[in-house]
Amino acid sequence: MRHLLEIDDLNETEVAEILEIANAKEYSKVLDRQGVALIFEKPSARTRNSMEMAVIQLGGHPIYISAEEIGLDKRESVEDVTRTLSCFHSMIGARVFKHSTVERMAKENRVPIVNLLSDEAHPLQALADVLTMQQELGDLKGRSVAYIGDGNNVFRSLALASGFLGMEVRFSGPSEYSINDEDRDRLNFSGVNFSEYDNPEEAVKDVDVVYTDVWTSMGQEQEKDKRHKAFEGFQVNEELMEMAGKRAIFLHCLPAHRGEEVVDEVVDGAASRVWIQAENRMHAARGLLNWLVEKNLGEQGRHE
Amino acid sequence: MRHLLEIDDLNETEVAEILEIANAKEYSKVLDRQGVALIFEKPSARTRNSMEMAVIQLGGHPIYISAEEIGLDKRESVEDVTRTLSCFHSMIGARVFKHSTVERMAKENRVPIVNLLSDEAHPLQALADVLTMQQELGDLKGRSVAYIGDGNNVFRSLALASGFLGMEVRFSGPSEYSINDEDRDRLNFSGVNFSEYDNPEEAVKDVDVVYTDVWTSMGQEQEKDKRHKAFEGFQVNEELMEMAGKRAIFLHCLPAHRGEEVVDEVVDGAASRVWIQAENRMHAARGLLNWLVEKNLGEQGRHE
Amino acid sequence: MRHLLEIDDLNETEVAEILEIANAKEYSKVLDRQGVALIFEKPSARTRNSMEMAVIQLGGHPIYISAEEIGLDKRESVEDVTRTLSCFHSMIGARVFKHSTVERMAKENRVPIVNLLSDEAHPLQALADVLTMQQELGDLKGRSVAYIGDGNNVFRSLALASGFLGMEVRFSGPSEYSINDEDRDRLNFSGVNFSEYDNPEEAVKDVDVVYTDVWTSMGQEQEKDKRHKAFEGFQVNEELMEMAGKRAIFLHCLPAHRGEEVVDEVVDGAASRVWIQAENRMHAARGLLNWLVEKNLGEQGRHE
Repeated sequence: MRHLLEIDDLNETEVAEILEIANAKEYSKVLDRQGVALIFEKPSARTRNSMEMAVIQLGGHPIYISAEEIGLDKRESVEDVTRTLSCFHSMIGARVFKHSTVERMAKENRVPIVNLLSDEAHPLQALADVLTMQQELGDLKGRSVAYIGDGNNVFRSLALASGFLGMEVRFSGPSEYSINDEDRDRLNFSGVNFSEYDNPEEAVKDVDVVYTDVWTSMGQEQEKDKRHKAFEGFQVNEELMEMAGKRAIFLHCLPAHRGEEVVDEVVDGAASRVWIQAENRMHAARGLLNWLVEKNLGEQGRHE
Repeated sequence: MRHLLEIDDLNETEVAEILEIANAKEYSKVLDRQGVALIFEKPSARTRNSMEMAVIQLGGHPIYISAEEIGLDKRESVEDVTRTLSCFHSMIGARVFKHSTVERMAKENRVPIVNLLSDEAHPLQALADVLTMQQELGDLKGRSVAYIGDGNNVFRSLALASGFLGMEVRFSGPSEYSINDEDRDRLNFSGVNFSEYDNPEEAVKDVDVVYTDVWTSMGQEQEKDKRHKAFEGFQVNEELMEMAGKRAIFLHCLPAHRGEEVVDEVVDGAASRVWIQAENRMHAARGLLNWLVEKNLGEQGRHE
Repeated sequence: MRHLLEIDDLNETEVAEILEIANAKEYSKVLDRQGVALIFEKPSARTRNSMEMAVIQLGGHPIYISAEEIGLDKRESVEDVTRTLSCFHSMIGARVFKHSTVERMAKENRVPIVNLLSDEAHPLQALADVLTMQQELGDLKGRSVAYIGDGNNVFRSLALASGFLGMEVRFSGPSEYSINDEDRDRLNFSGVNFSEYDNPEEAVKDVDVVYTDVWTSMGQEQEKDKRHKAFEGFQVNEELMEMAGKRAIFLHCLPAHRGEEVVDEVVDGAASRVWIQAENRMHAARGLLNWLVEKNLGEQGRHE
């Protein structure tokens, strides 16, 4: 059974297949009257709304479940919750604190598990990102993206997805918030053309896409001052955008902390594609869910 | 793009159009597989359930979003939340503390915004009120409604809607809780036949409809004693109903604080239409949503 | 109007009718575009998800309402909430602290009320239980079930449902947590073949089904130590299962407190049917809802 916990659960061809379904105007009713459980350990605007609508567009019924309602490892173990929800639903999506939670769910192998954001990965965001870049730039082979800021879950998934599609991936952020060696190995293993820059000006030079994310994510509020100081100099502002390629576009997974990692002039400016990117969360999610249903039906078929 | 923040966003003809759709037995699937975001800064029974069902009856998918989940102006500005939700939804309804919140949403002009109750206005309640009065009394021209109690959001919207349809509107409440000059001007500007009475007995004399609302709304609990004292003498009881027109009906937007603004004998009595009125919340909402979709499609058409 | 507050709101024939609908492969769209309000005073995984999906499978739209949102007897009386929700919904399900709450709802007699778990009864669990036993064992006449542990709401509903279908019902638990005289009278009145055992080993002798539930339910956490001590010796473990009938199956309404009332080897063992039983919550709920709609339509027909 296929799950999606991180982009490298897919191969290059499969990412392309998902984007193709995401771009199709017609929606297949592959989830007709089926349930999809959506567990959220943290609140969410984009992820929740895009996932619910993706399920609806495929004919299914999403059930939004908050942390308090389901009590993971409190009222019932992650494993038993997974088994229980699998009795009623054709798929489970989960936004979790710890990546190991979605791993434990997938290990049960009852229904496909979709990672809706963990501390390590944000694959649905990355699918929306490459979908947006492809719509804007065409074939992504040989194109380049510079990610400025925090080497977090969003970056890792983005690097894998854009690397898979042949893009050059650049990173620039304060060294203490860079990605770790394990992630570097993982990118290298996946064949991603990846390089790191101390200087954001150098990183964005001639790139097609500039990408950033908040310096302080939910749950890191107590580190805010420290982080703010470390990230000084890594703001995406008009000066930095000037150094990128002439037709470079700007992406951000949102919400934006305007005045911190990005300024109004950029996020609301002519190069910004952030609202198209947000809408693509829904299309990418629909592409993935549709693909997962068909892939798993196909696998079932082979087993029979 | 047309929104509905307060009744006078509509004209008299448009209110009548909405009521006509609300009365139709057949429902149009104008929201087929489309999303409608419903944000609630305060909890709600009637508004939430009537809106969700109205969306369903039009073929759409409602997503109920609580204050904590969306964090208006906390996690993300009202403007950015509006843009985000517009990526996935065809409409946004919001029950807000401050009227300026729905005004800011409407200013984004991405999708139609529906005010599900603000500190200033409750237009969906007013549409349900005039729908109920029309069903009970027929043509409302020359008919009269006396509102007894707090000159609040419910009253203002009611006065506009019933005034638009040709009713005489009377108000009686303690002077310190009466409507303000700005609202008086607004009613006059809209041509509402409006008068104020110190004495509730005089206000209800020969009217067709007696209407009241709670003395202490959600969020005003600390003022309860003070309000209770001020509103003494403005209770709708059997004696007061006797002074109204012989076939006068009683309306209340609910929930009722029985024994305060109204007594059991009235709210449960023969003249009460409060449960029909509550059900009409759903029909009025469906009428409005359907009308908004068609109106905005029409406007779009003209722009092309 | 027919409601379901406890199994003995039904007769033997009617329980059989519900199970027949639950087993049918085709679902009837008896709730097409109708609303069903689902009120939860306590959070729930199985009950919520199975009920929502049952409503969906019948073509309807479930609205999940938490305790804070509806404020039973706080913002509005149980009676007024019932009347209000009946304006928009074709049915109301409620998971309540006090059984009297669902009784008060049913007394309003506006729409069918379904008890989704009260301090006294859990009829939807019991319907799923007998559905599971029937699927596993065939005709239940002359079959036997031993319930080990707490003489709670789950037990009472199970005893009624399995007794109705001709099973022998055995109970074994610490005397201070046994059922009360009123419940004994009720089982006797319903003609249930019921007996109590001090010794769990004797209780399970040659039975077809061994059933247990947690020793400490939600809300009883402060009694945990006391209860743990009292229930010592009433654990369902491999030794106890050995004493049951050779092909005996194990059931549990879940969530399980592994290592307390049951051990991993049993709940995950070959005799366990707990996940089939969990899935049957959905099928049993669908059977009941469908039956209620048809029964009440039939009654309405007779009144005309």
